[in-house]
Amino acid sequence: MNEKRIYLVGLGPGEVSQMTGQALAALEDADVLCGYPVYVDLVKDRFPDKQTYTTPMRQELERCRWAIETARSGKTVAFLCSGDAGVYGMAGPLLQLAEGVEAVEIEVVPGVTAALSGAAVLGAPLMHDFCVISLSDLLTPWETIEKRLRCAAQGDFSLALYNPGSKKRTEHLRRACDILLEDKDPATLCGWVRNIGREGTDHALLTLEQLRDFRADMFTTVFIGNRTTKAIDGRMVTPRGYENKT
Amino acid sequence: MNEKRIYLVGLGPGEVSQMTGQALAALEDADVLCGYPVYVDLVKDRFPDKQTYTTPMRQELERCRWAIETARSGKTVAFLCSGDAGVYGMAGPLLQLAEGVEAVEIEVVPGVTAALSGAAVLGAPLMHDFCVISLSDLLTPWETIEKRLRCAAQGDFSLALYNPGSKKRTEHLRRACDILLEDKDPATLCGWVRNIGREGTDHALLTLEQLRDFRADMFTTVFIGNRTTKAIDGRMVTPRGYENKT
Repeated sequence: MNEKRIYLVGLGPGEVSQMTGQALAALEDADVLCGYPVYVDLVKDRFPDKQTYTTPMRQELERCRWAIETARSGKTVAFLCSGDAGVYGMAGPLLQLAEGVEAVEIEVVPGVTAALSGAAVLGAPLMHDFCVISLSDLLTPWETIEKRLRCAAQGDFSLALYNPGSKKRTEHLRRACDILLEDKDPATLCGWVRNIGREGTDHALLTLEQLRDFRADMFTTVFIGNRTTKAIDGRMVTPRGYENKT
Repeated sequence: MNEKRIYLVGLGPGEVSQMTGQALAALEDADVLCGYPVYVDLVKDRFPDKQTYTTPMRQELERCRWAIETARSGKTVAFLCSGDAGVYGMAGPLLQLAEGVEAVEIEVVPGVTAALSGAAVLGAPLMHDFCVISLSDLLTPWETIEKRLRCAAQGDFSLALYNPGSKKRTEHLRRACDILLEDKDPATLCGWVRNIGREGTDHALLTLEQLRDFRADMFTTVFIGNRTTKAIDGRMVTPRGYENKT
């Protein structure tokens, strides 16, 4: 076993009970827990003796570089990400920055991303083919996001939208809905979930037309159905197709 | 608490260590473990005293009906799905069949689906916007699958392909690649993972051109990059976009 190791750990939506056993074992094995302060706070009570290293938001790359240098120095680092480390997480940037650093072993430990944990709250909106799209244009040109929304609507995918809004980005969800409405019915069933897996989880179903006027914050994940998605006893369900066979 | 309850439990890719604490707690709470025999076998050693109920493949709806009747009779049922219960799992069909059955509480417990667990094996192929598409035409017309593949390629999404092949369906992956090649570069980086999280996990990177000739079986998940996806130290990495900001 190589002792110079970084685990990229997906914590799932929040509470420790939503982590996998493998993720917990990675934290147990680590010398240092590293991440955005909120994520480190979620687990540090369980590992009171571990060293921690946090950097504020927007300093992700600095954190990656620190993790690589710390692992090179002989420590095992658990790099914490909310949800899954491989979905808008830090697995990609860290692997890119560690290119050619042969002495450090990097292991990605998957977790339950918000598309899955939010879907479970709403019912089963992603039962069939689906797309995951982030509405944040911090790292992606808005034209790329628009193009993908348009293609997703034309393919009649269900969608999970990450980063649908924030204090600064108040119009992105409305603009996204307008693009989707070019190809999707205004009555398409949608849903949102806020604070998934944390205190104060909240959710609601609504139509795509109504979603235009919904004010999403950065703790919200938005779900948009395909043309067969329907409400069943208050849940959002995309049929898988068994009803066509029987 | 309502005692008439069905947990729809996503087991993750296989080994118990890949389940969440919440999923384990649901199995612990259940009187009966119900599912496809392979899934029940994965966990029954840990719960030797639980009643089990299995039905073979293609009898999923019968299993759902049994679970609903068993819960109505006052037992708590854990309905096991591999990966996540809400991604090509049984959450949708069960919620549909339980429509109007007010006496039974249904709770979806999310798990790590193969898109996430397979991505972790390969590196970080789904770091940016992505689509999940099943190539099985058992429940979906092939024309719908073709249309979605075409839209996914036009939107330059990364893709995770479920059910890329089986003994009977040997040509689906090749046909899918041919559609993707209408809009994607033949050199697009792809990968496959077999037996994720189980004994004999295997994986490889290859180009979209090479993927045409790959023979996938039903234990394989296939990943297709977007136009920026690249190999870094043997891993498949889709950049998130930080490099455009720095």
